[in-house]
Amino acid sequence: MPQSNYMSKNITIIGAGLVGSLLGIYLSKKGNKVTIYERRPDMRKASISAGRSINLALSDRGIKALEEVGIMDEIRKIAIPMHGRQMHLADGSKPFQPYGKEGQFINSVSRGELNCKLMDLAEQHDVTIFFNHRCDSIDWNNNHIQFTKTTDNSQSIVASDIIFGSDGAYSAARLAHQLQHDRFQYQQYYIDFGYKELLIPPGKDGSFLLDKNALHIWPRGNYMMIALPNMDGSFTCTLFFPFEGNPSFQTLDTKEKVQSFFESTFGDVCSLMPTLQEDFFNNPTSSLVTVKCFPWVRTDKFALIGDAAHAIVPFFGQGMNCGFEDCSVLNALIEKYNDDWTTILHEFQLSRKPDSDAIADLAINNFIEMRDKVADPKFLLQKKIEANVSKKYPGRWIPAYSQVTFSPHIRYSEALKNGSRQEKIMQEIMSMPGIENKWDKEEVEQMIIKKMDEQL
Amino acid sequence: MPQSNYMSKNITIIGAGLVGSLLGIYLSKKGNKVTIYERRPDMRKASISAGRSINLALSDRGIKALEEVGIMDEIRKIAIPMHGRQMHLADGSKPFQPYGKEGQFINSVSRGELNCKLMDLAEQHDVTIFFNHRCDSIDWNNNHIQFTKTTDNSQSIVASDIIFGSDGAYSAARLAHQLQHDRFQYQQYYIDFGYKELLIPPGKDGSFLLDKNALHIWPRGNYMMIALPNMDGSFTCTLFFPFEGNPSFQTLDTKEKVQSFFESTFGDVCSLMPTLQEDFFNNPTSSLVTVKCFPWVRTDKFALIGDAAHAIVPFFGQGMNCGFEDCSVLNALIEKYNDDWTTILHEFQLSRKPDSDAIADLAINNFIEMRDKVADPKFLLQKKIEANVSKKYPGRWIPAYSQVTFSPHIRYSEALKNGSRQEKIMQEIMSMPGIENKWDKEEVEQMIIKKMDEQL
Repeated sequence: MPQSNYMSKNITIIGAGLVGSLLGIYLSKKGNKVTIYERRPDMRKASISAGRSINLALSDRGIKALEEVGIMDEIRKIAIPMHGRQMHLADGSKPFQPYGKEGQFINSVSRGELNCKLMDLAEQHDVTIFFNHRCDSIDWNNNHIQFTKTTDNSQSIVASDIIFGSDGAYSAARLAHQLQHDRFQYQQYYIDFGYKELLIPPGKDGSFLLDKNALHIWPRGNYMMIALPNMDGSFTCTLFFPFEGNPSFQTLDTKEKVQSFFESTFGDVCSLMPTLQEDFFNNPTSSLVTVKCFPWVRTDKFALIGDAAHAIVPFFGQGMNCGFEDCSVLNALIEKYNDDWTTILHEFQLSRKPDSDAIADLAINNFIEMRDKVADPKFLLQKKIEANVSKKYPGRWIPAYSQVTFSPHIRYSEALKNGSRQEKIMQEIMSMPGIENKWDKEEVEQMIIKKMDEQL
Repeated sequence: MPQSNYMSKNITIIGAGLVGSLLGIYLSKKGNKVTIYERRPDMRKASISAGRSINLALSDRGIKALEEVGIMDEIRKIAIPMHGRQMHLADGSKPFQPYGKEGQFINSVSRGELNCKLMDLAEQHDVTIFFNHRCDSIDWNNNHIQFTKTTDNSQSIVASDIIFGSDGAYSAARLAHQLQHDRFQYQQYYIDFGYKELLIPPGKDGSFLLDKNALHIWPRGNYMMIALPNMDGSFTCTLFFPFEGNPSFQTLDTKEKVQSFFESTFGDVCSLMPTLQEDFFNNPTSSLVTVKCFPWVRTDKFALIGDAAHAIVPFFGQGMNCGFEDCSVLNALIEKYNDDWTTILHEFQLSRKPDSDAIADLAINNFIEMRDKVADPKFLLQKKIEANVSKKYPGRWIPAYSQVTFSPHIRYSEALKNGSRQEKIMQEIMSMPGIENKWDKEEVEQMIIKKMDEQL
């Protein structure tokens, strides 16, 4: 229901991805006229899987943003709860590490399915979406966007009151902004790892061939594979792997090498991947980038949002959740400042910049953790101790992962700070002689509590 | 004299600035056909001072590169030796801090004069320069550059064997490279300070109104002004000043405020600046950026060089020197690998990247030092102790400033490391009780030597 004294705006959103579609719903519900221009064709009409998606892990921040506009019930229908990490270690053992407390879980969602659903919902909320429209440039003096329609190369100029750029890590809107903004702080940083989508198809009669309600990880020191469940019983696997070195995407250059590498490295699932060799060479090798920039906005006219403002690596499962939270934060500011868009957009970037910087750093750190540490007995012991303390003192010790994933009231930037403080304490605890034998003893707990008090 | 077995190349350089012009001389002397395309008009024909230049401090790395192609004698004619920093402190005192040992100095050169001279020399070395040519895009498959002639908007395509992008911090060549290079690491970082060119004209009969052979600094905590001598008796002043805050470019918004601020802050020279008020409002406020990127090259076809590859802030006086050293390093690689340009360019970026990263960091550090510390008695004492040790143990303790400025055989990356080690020692020395009274005593020297030995 639009606020009665709210002045409706003509808003153009560039990009009908996850964040653009959800943003459209938010802004339309506020009473604005919203049009989205999307570069790609309508994915609901043509099957255009590029074989480059990583399944998404929808968690509490994203859920909160979906609930706020009343569409979470719809999304829940295509989400599969995952209660923890199911490790598949090189020695054949398979420890399970819960993500949080009893009843806490994250949700596997297919990017394509979710995006289609969000576009449907956007259109049901009176948002108009044009496909095959590429943003070429923006005239900042007049807020005119020039689009090329990719199906016939025709050009058009679109005028709006406000423009949002939600067109992802390689945002054309951001480039148009950057090229004409003095003192634009900008950083794009690629890690030396790429990823490739692979597949574990469903069993006969659509059964799941691995535990359905877990995120599966095969950590192997310098690289790893993960697998997330899909509604049809399949798992989308993602191999995170170095571009160069041995082994790397460069060295696995024949089907035989791929097959033999997977048999020796991921022996327990290799037989579940009948199309491995084809998938490996048909699917692209994609890169992983962190983008930080500032400013995100221009007066009351323009804002970047989602990956376009702050692309992060996928290792905390927070890219989409962070983008959805952007929408929720923006909405709260509209409620606070009504249609004072200069203030809304200014506060939006001031509020979200430190949080998106924090989750970017947390995601890079989690990459290292998932790759190098989850197979380390000492790390697993540390996590057990933390879980123990967290259980006894639930308000005082929330594991960093839980702060990010299950505590939307804690800002990412606070979670990063709290996590660093906790890690410092745990480093000291883990260096206690004989910690392996006394980890669950009162003595250790008391020590942790004492150190927490000292930090206050 | 071209090497007899060297295969001449058709080389296009984008940008006829300091580095582009010198690079042209280097490459032409090797026997290549060199053409430079410059976006701006020919500065030798029209007086187009934009009032935004900072005088340059030519030092040993730059001199070495100019000597290698035999043009230093020409350049020396327009260079004024500066033997140290002449401080003008807020309390009216004027301590002088030599840059190095007796006989070591840096050289004040006007950017415009130097650039004109280098273009003349390039043309004398058979380099062709086209002006008013803006690089619009590069077709990387064919090594075709598209230029627009800005005087009549006509377009042309230029084919070459090798392209160099030496078009500065806002390089169009780098953008063309970046937009089509996967996994391009890129960072542009602006400090919160801008700068403005101001003027101290010559006295009657062309005399210098401040000491000619010094770099003058007015350090004022959060900002500073510097002045460097010109051949005509004038000094080019540069005010480095915050964009926002109080005081800042934002707050000094009337001629009266400027005049009053300068009188109270730079009282000893204010009367020497008769055009202060006009200069302040006629000259632009320019920003200061650090650019880091990678890769710089494409196979045997393309390389960024100078500021286009690694723009730095001007506070170590090394931007030009570093760019000239690029030319010298590239030349050494041509001599080593003859016309194996894939190897030459590959080694060039591998060799220069860590050094340009190091001088970028050193320049930012020096900004803090010049702004905050040169007025600090403790800092001045530290510098005296270092000078003392350096004098007694000339081979063992070379001050970081001297390593960068007077020691072209020490790489920037080594200078950064050595400097950090020395700073660590000096922090310990400066925290010795009563250091003010015993700073020149044997005891202190011995302590420094002992700590240096421990670091080995």
